[in-house]
Amino acid sequence: MRLTPLYCLALFALVLTPLSLSAQEAKDPIAESGFVKEFGTMWTFDAPPLAYWKAAYDFAPERAWLDHVRLSAVRIPGCSASVVSDQGLVMTNHHCARSCITAVSTDDVNYQATGFVAAREEDEPRCPGMTADQLQSIEDVTAKVRQAVTARATEERVAQRDAAIQTIQDECAASTGLICQVVTFYQGGMYSLYRYKRFQDLRLVMAPEEEISFFGGDPDNFTYPRYDLDVTFLRIYENGRPLLAEHFLRWNAKGATEGEVVFVVGNPGSTGRMLTLAQMEYLRDVQYPHQLAQIAALIRAYRALSEQSPAAARQYENNIFSLENAQKAIRGYHSGLTDVDLMARKKRFEDDFRARIRADRQLQSNYGRAWDAIARAQAELTSFATEARYQAFGGSTLFIMAGNLVLLPEQAAMPNDRRLPQFQEDGPDRFRSQLLRNRELDLGVETAMLTVQLSLMQEHLPAGDPVLRAALQGQSPEEAAKRLIGGTKLHTLEAREALVEGGAAAVQASDDPLIVLARVIAPLMTRHGMRQARLNTTISANAELMGQAIFAAYGKALPPDATFTLRISDGVVKGFPMNGTIAPYRTSFYGLFGRNAEFDDQPPFHLPDRWKMAVGRLDLATPVDFVSTADIIGGNSGSPLVNRKGEVVGVAFDGNIEMLPNRFIFTDEVSRTVSVHTAAITEALKKVYGAERIAEELERAAIR
Amino acid sequence: MRLTPLYCLALFALVLTPLSLSAQEAKDPIAESGFVKEFGTMWTFDAPPLAYWKAAYDFAPERAWLDHVRLSAVRIPGCSASVVSDQGLVMTNHHCARSCITAVSTDDVNYQATGFVAAREEDEPRCPGMTADQLQSIEDVTAKVRQAVTARATEERVAQRDAAIQTIQDECAASTGLICQVVTFYQGGMYSLYRYKRFQDLRLVMAPEEEISFFGGDPDNFTYPRYDLDVTFLRIYENGRPLLAEHFLRWNAKGATEGEVVFVVGNPGSTGRMLTLAQMEYLRDVQYPHQLAQIAALIRAYRALSEQSPAAARQYENNIFSLENAQKAIRGYHSGLTDVDLMARKKRFEDDFRARIRADRQLQSNYGRAWDAIARAQAELTSFATEARYQAFGGSTLFIMAGNLVLLPEQAAMPNDRRLPQFQEDGPDRFRSQLLRNRELDLGVETAMLTVQLSLMQEHLPAGDPVLRAALQGQSPEEAAKRLIGGTKLHTLEAREALVEGGAAAVQASDDPLIVLARVIAPLMTRHGMRQARLNTTISANAELMGQAIFAAYGKALPPDATFTLRISDGVVKGFPMNGTIAPYRTSFYGLFGRNAEFDDQPPFHLPDRWKMAVGRLDLATPVDFVSTADIIGGNSGSPLVNRKGEVVGVAFDGNIEMLPNRFIFTDEVSRTVSVHTAAITEALKKVYGAERIAEELERAAIR
Repeated sequence: MRLTPLYCLALFALVLTPLSLSAQEAKDPIAESGFVKEFGTMWTFDAPPLAYWKAAYDFAPERAWLDHVRLSAVRIPGCSASVVSDQGLVMTNHHCARSCITAVSTDDVNYQATGFVAAREEDEPRCPGMTADQLQSIEDVTAKVRQAVTARATEERVAQRDAAIQTIQDECAASTGLICQVVTFYQGGMYSLYRYKRFQDLRLVMAPEEEISFFGGDPDNFTYPRYDLDVTFLRIYENGRPLLAEHFLRWNAKGATEGEVVFVVGNPGSTGRMLTLAQMEYLRDVQYPHQLAQIAALIRAYRALSEQSPAAARQYENNIFSLENAQKAIRGYHSGLTDVDLMARKKRFEDDFRARIRADRQLQSNYGRAWDAIARAQAELTSFATEARYQAFGGSTLFIMAGNLVLLPEQAAMPNDRRLPQFQEDGPDRFRSQLLRNRELDLGVETAMLTVQLSLMQEHLPAGDPVLRAALQGQSPEEAAKRLIGGTKLHTLEAREALVEGGAAAVQASDDPLIVLARVIAPLMTRHGMRQARLNTTISANAELMGQAIFAAYGKALPPDATFTLRISDGVVKGFPMNGTIAPYRTSFYGLFGRNAEFDDQPPFHLPDRWKMAVGRLDLATPVDFVSTADIIGGNSGSPLVNRKGEVVGVAFDGNIEMLPNRFIFTDEVSRTVSVHTAAITEALKKVYGAERIAEELERAAIR
Repeated sequence: MRLTPLYCLALFALVLTPLSLSAQEAKDPIAESGFVKEFGTMWTFDAPPLAYWKAAYDFAPERAWLDHVRLSAVRIPGCSASVVSDQGLVMTNHHCARSCITAVSTDDVNYQATGFVAAREEDEPRCPGMTADQLQSIEDVTAKVRQAVTARATEERVAQRDAAIQTIQDECAASTGLICQVVTFYQGGMYSLYRYKRFQDLRLVMAPEEEISFFGGDPDNFTYPRYDLDVTFLRIYENGRPLLAEHFLRWNAKGATEGEVVFVVGNPGSTGRMLTLAQMEYLRDVQYPHQLAQIAALIRAYRALSEQSPAAARQYENNIFSLENAQKAIRGYHSGLTDVDLMARKKRFEDDFRARIRADRQLQSNYGRAWDAIARAQAELTSFATEARYQAFGGSTLFIMAGNLVLLPEQAAMPNDRRLPQFQEDGPDRFRSQLLRNRELDLGVETAMLTVQLSLMQEHLPAGDPVLRAALQGQSPEEAAKRLIGGTKLHTLEAREALVEGGAAAVQASDDPLIVLARVIAPLMTRHGMRQARLNTTISANAELMGQAIFAAYGKALPPDATFTLRISDGVVKGFPMNGTIAPYRTSFYGLFGRNAEFDDQPPFHLPDRWKMAVGRLDLATPVDFVSTADIIGGNSGSPLVNRKGEVVGVAFDGNIEMLPNRFIFTDEVSRTVSVHTAAITEALKKVYGAERIAEELERAAIR
């Protein structure tokens, strides 16, 4: 799977029931260290699990080791990365540098297709918009945030909390010049201030072809055995010169070996291990089924558009890729939630958690009602979920614009706290300027996307629904979409300007067919949106209580849910049982050329010519990808794998399909992190890409 | 999986309900041809599904084509094979020729380990006991058998039927000199006389090393992707000279290609697609769980014995291999029976079948009670299954001998039809001579095996059980086994002779501890055995009714359950969805060397030196194994895969793990036959084994 879209891991799950804490387990030094496997291993750097590491691996890193790996790691947009030379060389995944590789491509050369190697430093082009954040420090600010929250009413408390967080961030930024972010852990059980040094000049050094970095394409995505060279090298520049990096991971060209302990240092995006059963059931029965229906409809629509021409196919390739990626991920999460055993384990944990709270009068008084409050809110959300989803704007950009044009005057006229959440967050001005931006819209695509939306409405809303009647007017979704997009003028800036500037009166008077439809939808959508906002506030306030309750019940030794902030996860390099046999701990170039041959060199198993010509030069037994039991999720893409010595032995780029249910509960019987092996990178740099300059830089820095 | 142990397929399953035979399906030419997918495709040669083949593949073979492939196929002990040259060259699986390869090995050279290539004809050693049967003709003898059955009582009818079958066989053998066998199809719905020409002089021509023929060992067994060269060449001799074969399959060195239709011609052993739901539930809830418990205990015991020395490890390797093979197979079958969807499909079929019978008064009168009669008998078998299994002799050879010594006098004194089934079948004399044969028994192994048996008894029988009390006498199973094996004299021929010749009185007077225990068990075991025999007769009589009922309900176009007789199954060469991605239709030598490298050259992924040295000479992209949707089961091992032209393109050796539930219902969404590709065999003969003589013989015969 691609790790970029948030799919993560972290807190929670099947804590042992008191009964099962038998004498035998109590003697287990790992259990004694406070480690509870089902919560996963996404540790924060201010709470490294030293007792557990000592018990599990006989590994007791010094403070300096932890500082070294933390300061060698950097966060880039949506992904993770690491500094791997004293010259600021940065390693991440190819799929994390996609936007840069595309941006520096020219009309003549598409580096996604051809790969890119900068022969000299001066050939390293700048990646527009790319930044790298290095985590300088972590400070627990829970007390400061709590002190600021004095009100009784939930909404007011939330506002006080948000204001306190903003103040802490602003003061920090002003005093340090760093990027400052207050991170919410344990759903509000704890707040920490993260300070980052931001590097703003990153340049492209080396990228392989997409065919080798994403070898196997969508079928192999999220699976293992795998043969992807999903790696790209960037370089941090400061003041126009390569960064003289104080902290970097030394290159271990031998890479990871079977049974070795490894540490993934990166930024897992989001997990749901602290969710209550009621929240998980909502995802299982309401949210994921709706999302999967929508994704499937969109994929069908983009496929149909793609069939019209090769140019269209290229244009929609990225959309289809992202949607298929999301589809495979959500299906995997959903499969976890429909797994009877997994849900039973979750229930056992929740029963135990609630019993611990009930057993103490004060805890019960503080937290005891939180589960039921969440369950009631989820039940109410379920009761109008279909209406909230389909009595709404979506699919086509013009349709969404029409909705915003109708909503804008009334939302702008309200006090902020009465507005819809999206208008509270961004403010009416942002919507206004978006509507007044000049945009080129392809009306064919708009028609196709509106057809998708109207078809979904037709499928899910009852026949007599007022929105459905107003939209279709007795036509099929496709006919109705053609009529609406054919009749609207909203693709012209003039039409939108007239409505924005004319305000409520102009919107009321308009006979633009999309505006007429939006006037039917807007009041319903507003009502659903405000009701959802109220229920979500209830859920979030009670989730925060639960975050505090978990400390009371289990102490603070458990890693919190993922937050796209820096974590260190431990694991062991290890194969796993798969489909009746065993998957090896690592793959090989033999296997790569095998899968290429076995699919008769057809895409997505086609190989670039450069690879085919290199086959005789390569040591085909070299490891390509490898697996470990480390705990990752989307956002971890590009994370370095570090050995006991603090050297880099790989770069994470995916999990196997068995890992997807880890979003809700961590298991490591068969779930694995998939990483590119440093031996494969070294071999490819030298023998496929003629990139000795980079290989030598890695080797030279490693022995400094 | 290894196909030798019976694991098959054939009749039955999800016939469409009348409702689902919609207009659309009625227009499907394949459905119109009478093909019902769930019954599988193990066709008999006297009822080839010509309409279905025409509709599915536009393939309409002449009679000559069918005769050609039938007469080119031969059945060898437990397996299938084919003649592939005009000089009587026979191809089968390496694992089917195991006994021959071992038998012709010398003290100095173990050809299982080293492989074997006969450089010249005179170097081809004879395989002791190996025969090859060529199917000459098939004759429907149902009417003849039925005419002979005139009695009313079930036991008498069975005896009449068996006598009629014996007469037909004897008369055929006397008049033709052929091997004659009456085969029971559709559980007794139909009887056919199969006549075979038997070849008795088979010699070993070429066998690869076991490491390459069984590459991946137990983990990869029953799975795909696979990289096994599971092939061996034998030669039929007649009158001391190679057979000048009139019928043989021409060698197609290009082998199978993706999407191509292929036919498997071989002898599937046994399937249970005609079983009723009640019979399947018995397997699921009673028989398989018991078998799995026993297999697991035996594997543990042999592992423990193996750990004592390398010599012991070699000795028990075969036992462990067979047990693990059976374990993987039974787990697969069991998984089919615990699959909710599959059982629901089965129930739909049974409901439809019963409704069709009920709808006709005469059919209902003839067959309508059969299902309930079987269900009642299965329920009664279930009620005492544990006692029948563990109030019995088993595990240790000495324990079984003790049981037979006690049973022999009383069984010998009875009329044959009152005896236990095993004594009816073999006769008391056979037991007597077995007991009086001189045997060397390892008392350590006997103790271990008796420990297994006593442990299983202890686990399954209630604490106060008389057998358990008599066996353990308050000791642990291991102590009791030591006491019993330590105290018995039955390992000496003299002790057994004294008891056989002394008869009932000697047995009664004996104070040998195993005889004392056997005297407690024998009456219980006899009672259970007679009760089981009565219930099994009821089941088999009603199953025969059901075999007739299926013709009445669905006509005769459906292939019968497997019977280890020659069938032809059609399929398409095709990959399948696997573990989140797709498995290719074929593997490659690249993949072979990949899996070897990826497990760091460790067994069972170790490769013979000859292969490692050949890597530079081989075309690594050559197909090794490939998959097709053909319908096979144990017994099909060694079956040729034949293309439209009647050429051989592969040799079947396994199914993927997804195929195991096919024993009870055929599906081809993900289940696949795994075969060795002829291109791999050609490449290996020439470039690994220096066996140009054989490669050239294949090529020369192909162009004759």
